[in-house]
Amino acid sequence: MNVVYTHIRRADPEVVNALADFGVATVHEAQGRTGLLGPQLRPIYPGARISGSAVTVSVPPADNWMIHVAVEQCQPGDVLVVARTSYSDAGYFGELLGASLAARGVRGLVIDAGVRDVADLTRMRFPVWSKAVYAQGTVKETLGSVNVPVVCAGGLVNPGDVVIADDDGVCIVPRLEAVNVVKASDARSAKETRTRERLEKGELGLDIYDMREKLAKRGLIYRPQSLPE
Amino acid sequence: MNVVYTHIRRADPEVVNALADFGVATVHEAQGRTGLLGPQLRPIYPGARISGSAVTVSVPPADNWMIHVAVEQCQPGDVLVVARTSYSDAGYFGELLGASLAARGVRGLVIDAGVRDVADLTRMRFPVWSKAVYAQGTVKETLGSVNVPVVCAGGLVNPGDVVIADDDGVCIVPRLEAVNVVKASDARSAKETRTRERLEKGELGLDIYDMREKLAKRGLIYRPQSLPE
Amino acid sequence: MNVVYTHIRRADPEVVNALADFGVATVHEAQGRTGLLGPQLRPIYPGARISGSAVTVSVPPADNWMIHVAVEQCQPGDVLVVARTSYSDAGYFGELLGASLAARGVRGLVIDAGVRDVADLTRMRFPVWSKAVYAQGTVKETLGSVNVPVVCAGGLVNPGDVVIADDDGVCIVPRLEAVNVVKASDARSAKETRTRERLEKGELGLDIYDMREKLAKRGLIYRPQSLPE
Amino acid sequence: MNVVYTHIRRADPEVVNALADFGVATVHEAQGRTGLLGPQLRPIYPGARISGSAVTVSVPPADNWMIHVAVEQCQPGDVLVVARTSYSDAGYFGELLGASLAARGVRGLVIDAGVRDVADLTRMRFPVWSKAVYAQGTVKETLGSVNVPVVCAGGLVNPGDVVIADDDGVCIVPRLEAVNVVKASDARSAKETRTRERLEKGELGLDIYDMREKLAKRGLIYRPQSLPE
Amino acid sequence: MNVVYTHIRRADPEVVNALADFGVATVHEAQGRTGLLGPQLRPIYPGARISGSAVTVSVPPADNWMIHVAVEQCQPGDVLVVARTSYSDAGYFGELLGASLAARGVRGLVIDAGVRDVADLTRMRFPVWSKAVYAQGTVKETLGSVNVPVVCAGGLVNPGDVVIADDDGVCIVPRLEAVNVVKASDARSAKETRTRERLEKGELGLDIYDMREKLAKRGLIYRPQSLPE
Amino acid sequence: MNVVYTHIRRADPEVVNALADFGVATVHEAQGRTGLLGPQLRPIYPGARISGSAVTVSVPPADNWMIHVAVEQCQPGDVLVVARTSYSDAGYFGELLGASLAARGVRGLVIDAGVRDVADLTRMRFPVWSKAVYAQGTVKETLGSVNVPVVCAGGLVNPGDVVIADDDGVCIVPRLEAVNVVKASDARSAKETRTRERLEKGELGLDIYDMREKLAKRGLIYRPQSLPE
Repeated sequence: MNVVYTHIRRADPEVVNALADFGVATVHEAQGRTGLLGPQLRPIYPGARISGSAVTVSVPPADNWMIHVAVEQCQPGDVLVVARTSYSDAGYFGELLGASLAARGVRGLVIDAGVRDVADLTRMRFPVWSKAVYAQGTVKETLGSVNVPVVCAGGLVNPGDVVIADDDGVCIVPRLEAVNVVKASDARSAKETRTRERLEKGELGLDIYDMREKLAKRGLIYRPQSLPE
Repeated sequence: MNVVYTHIRRADPEVVNALADFGVATVHEAQGRTGLLGPQLRPIYPGARISGSAVTVSVPPADNWMIHVAVEQCQPGDVLVVARTSYSDAGYFGELLGASLAARGVRGLVIDAGVRDVADLTRMRFPVWSKAVYAQGTVKETLGSVNVPVVCAGGLVNPGDVVIADDDGVCIVPRLEAVNVVKASDARSAKETRTRERLEKGELGLDIYDMREKLAKRGLIYRPQSLPE
Repeated sequence: MNVVYTHIRRADPEVVNALADFGVATVHEAQGRTGLLGPQLRPIYPGARISGSAVTVSVPPADNWMIHVAVEQCQPGDVLVVARTSYSDAGYFGELLGASLAARGVRGLVIDAGVRDVADLTRMRFPVWSKAVYAQGTVKETLGSVNVPVVCAGGLVNPGDVVIADDDGVCIVPRLEAVNVVKASDARSAKETRTRERLEKGELGLDIYDMREKLAKRGLIYRPQSLPE
Repeated sequence: MNVVYTHIRRADPEVVNALADFGVATVHEAQGRTGLLGPQLRPIYPGARISGSAVTVSVPPADNWMIHVAVEQCQPGDVLVVARTSYSDAGYFGELLGASLAARGVRGLVIDAGVRDVADLTRMRFPVWSKAVYAQGTVKETLGSVNVPVVCAGGLVNPGDVVIADDDGVCIVPRLEAVNVVKASDARSAKETRTRERLEKGELGLDIYDMREKLAKRGLIYRPQSLPE
Repeated sequence: MNVVYTHIRRADPEVVNALADFGVATVHEAQGRTGLLGPQLRPIYPGARISGSAVTVSVPPADNWMIHVAVEQCQPGDVLVVARTSYSDAGYFGELLGASLAARGVRGLVIDAGVRDVADLTRMRFPVWSKAVYAQGTVKETLGSVNVPVVCAGGLVNPGDVVIADDDGVCIVPRLEAVNVVKASDARSAKETRTRERLEKGELGLDIYDMREKLAKRGLIYRPQSLPE
Repeated sequence: MNVVYTHIRRADPEVVNALADFGVATVHEAQGRTGLLGPQLRPIYPGARISGSAVTVSVPPADNWMIHVAVEQCQPGDVLVVARTSYSDAGYFGELLGASLAARGVRGLVIDAGVRDVADLTRMRFPVWSKAVYAQGTVKETLGSVNVPVVCAGGLVNPGDVVIADDDGVCIVPRLEAVNVVKASDARSAKETRTRERLEKGELGLDIYDMREKLAKRGLIYRPQSLPE
């Protein structure tokens, strides 16, 4: 059965925006190393960092019909997350769909497949995280679904979850955990700032994290180099 | 038998140049979704867009001797297309060959293998689409052929075909179809311009492409979200 | 047994620095096409070119504890080389470790696994050559070794070897051969400069390298194109 | 938080067993082309066909501690499903764990990572579907969870779901849909039997499925071959 | 334009059959190391060796409609060759289509995509060379073409070409060259028989092929091992 | 410089043979999880288990000349280990070389590239562990070296090291450690036998390995399943 769910719950916009400030690596750590999508998702240009509420789309192989359907379900502040039911490098998405999403205030696209018109999308500064860049077009023949739970790049995404994406990849925060993850990220980030200052002054992580005793207990041996000249 | 064909027919230069303006994605669509080489071919730097007449080279594994032979067969406005008979990431091509091709007015290189000296080639703005960047050199021991039909990144390329390449990949237009593809690309491009204007104003593809009835007929259902809070 | 060797022999700093000037492709050729690590190692940003003395680390899967241990063994002018004992895309290294290494004068990182915080590392201009960019964190549970011989991206690296890295990849020069490789690179580079000048004037490699007779002997045939219009 | 859920609901054993009779391809079709895990999962020997209730395990990279924990939660008729939180080819599972599971009446293992001792497991006829065969061992250092929802080879598996596995791969049937899927598979299978009989007599699918008119409407053209001799 | 060519020229059946006797490796060598399809094509069971005339099919992504169309164009002694226009692991082909082809005397299938029902196909001894085994089904929505030139697994196949397939892979012999390739294979095979007899008696290839002088000229040095104990 | 070392030290034949009895997984564990070559090396037929002294060969891309040279350096009980300096799937080795090695008493081949004639090699029961099966032939143009240290499938192999290979992959034991590894394997194997007997009777690894307290300390929680029906 192919369904479009038209109303999804989204997290508080302030919470969503706060998550972008921390970035993917910090958020991923702060929520206990969960929620990261696979390393095959790469940005089409460097330097973008976004967060937003997930509108999810499940698409058949090499068919982008449901992306057109999903555009209508998007609000300002959303991120479109496209999962495919079968491996594909085809370019499901190009600058026309990018213009359409940008006009609706959508902040970016995450797609476990290919994208095209990347020069235009870069010029528009519409960020995309995709598995491939490829000009091969798609058809509009077969239905899929919108705003259902999807598996994208090996991770589970529910509609309304918070998507964070930057040069390190893409991380998903469940909607109801977003507030807690902001707090945990904040704590982690503050601690990292203090650590960074000490490291920049030349202190060693071995001392800052107090690792020397634990290493010795596990049996680490220090020796002068003994290879013959 | 190893042969170098010394005279190939090329398409009209104006037609060749016109194809670059449309870019790979539009040309690929305009000729009925044919001619696209595989997604493994990626540009060594972003932003280049070229077209040209294919001078083709078939090379043995990790041997670039025939590329030197092929340089002589190139004219201003050509694009060198290198196909290998066996999988290789070796760097068949570097800045010396780049300087040689640039001196002859060649517009770029498409190679289903590796390339090296990419910092120099980027500085020279000599664009290359390759499967890998790798410093591993090659030998000059075994013959291949020049200006024979080749399979490059899974697509067939005949000498004299028009090569279009940009950030979306590489597309081949058969020489005798180039005029028709320009016309079809022009029509497609004009239509896309009108569509883009409507999308940028916030109109939906669902309405512009008149999809709602067709979706309903296929059985698409709209429902409010019903997941429990 | 897990060991940290605390004293390694390094090559003469002038020799190390001289190798960076030639770049990976030239050095690799000059030492007889040996020492190149695999093409999976790619820079996190374009344009960096470094050389340095290898401090080597062997790490367990998804565990970066030993990198913290290795930092203490680094001196100004070193390059950290991280080899894993099992395939992993996890992000073993981020901006905190980058800040720590930079504070010690380390020139860069080579890692046959993932790295994260690449936007920060790019801003800091701390260059990294890695197999993946991925935010997935690692643990600190299991010991490895520092300054032992390692296999990194398919190549052998001994502590104190010279690492050269640029946009073409990463090449290793054995410490005791570094002086000779500088000489050989110098000779090769001078020869390439002369060749480049001739190629830029439009001379053909076929003539510069005197290939025509050898090609004919091997049986290469030249023919006018004979395909039907 | 790392949890072991000790009581899971399972489908009716008769329903579970019935699904094995149909095999993966038929079940996958009968439930609307959903539930298939990725093609990287291959059997360690040909000819096995099983079904069972999923006991799920989420394991850290290269750490098989939780598999030992999961064994205790298994009952006769179960299938162990192991998902990893990070890419790994390591051999998390060998003949000792196989002997332990067999002693408890477990029917097989599905693992999105590596397995070892495959000669022994083949001799025991304990079937495994894995992404790799590899002798590399794992540690017992870090916790995971048992009987939580997992993403395995790109598909969602809930504890108690029905696992069907044969030479074509692995398919998951949600526990509450298992009865309906048996019915749908039965209908599909009966229809296929009738179709097979007609095909074996030489009738064409074109006629059995009544495709000729639809093909003509879509514009398919038949022509005698016209290539020159 | 989507076309089915209904009459293709085939090679003499005796010539076709003779090629199977030599096998892929010998035929590939005998025709000058051309015609080999990519190593991703693997047999679904070991031990099959076939030859036949190619009926070619070009299929859209995850759509097997044209395979049903192609069945009608097959004669006894043919081999079906399926090329896809976009990467796919989907199972385009299963036991029903296998039964239909077997009923028409078709000798096997070569497909640059997935196949399913491999246990049934193995039982029927209907050999398939495919890129993947996967239960994922396909649709019947979009046209392709039959008996046009196709690129399959990186190689060009014309309808009526001779297909040879065994455990080493798949090789294509152009129809008009088949007679010559039989002769060349015969000569090569006779020579190999004589060489094999000498090798089995313990003679060295170095002597049989008279390599010692050539090796010395190229500079090969023999030394006793000098590594310290 | 290309060298053939003609005398290598080998381990005691009894020690070499003893290692085969334990198999790859046990030996790999017994020597501290080192020495395993990459998972890409797979046997051409199931069920073989061998050990032997490594004769190593370093070969240029798609060139098998040095394998012919290496045959002469082999003694009964050796295993040929072929490493390539550049990625290749080409079939460097077929039944003629297999017949030659078998005539000299060589026990098998390990090659980080392709092999062909696998049906014949299977019939001869000459076992091969390779990265690919592929009919593509190679040339005899460029020198390499024999009995030098090589990196094969990511692992270091010195001439005279002991090679163990079975269905789980390939493991290398340094010659001078072979005696100790036999002892360690023996101890490990005896322990595994006792553990197996307990597991087969239904005892749990949790109890045999005394894991319950450690799991609790790390924070593992047991809960009844709480998902809604």
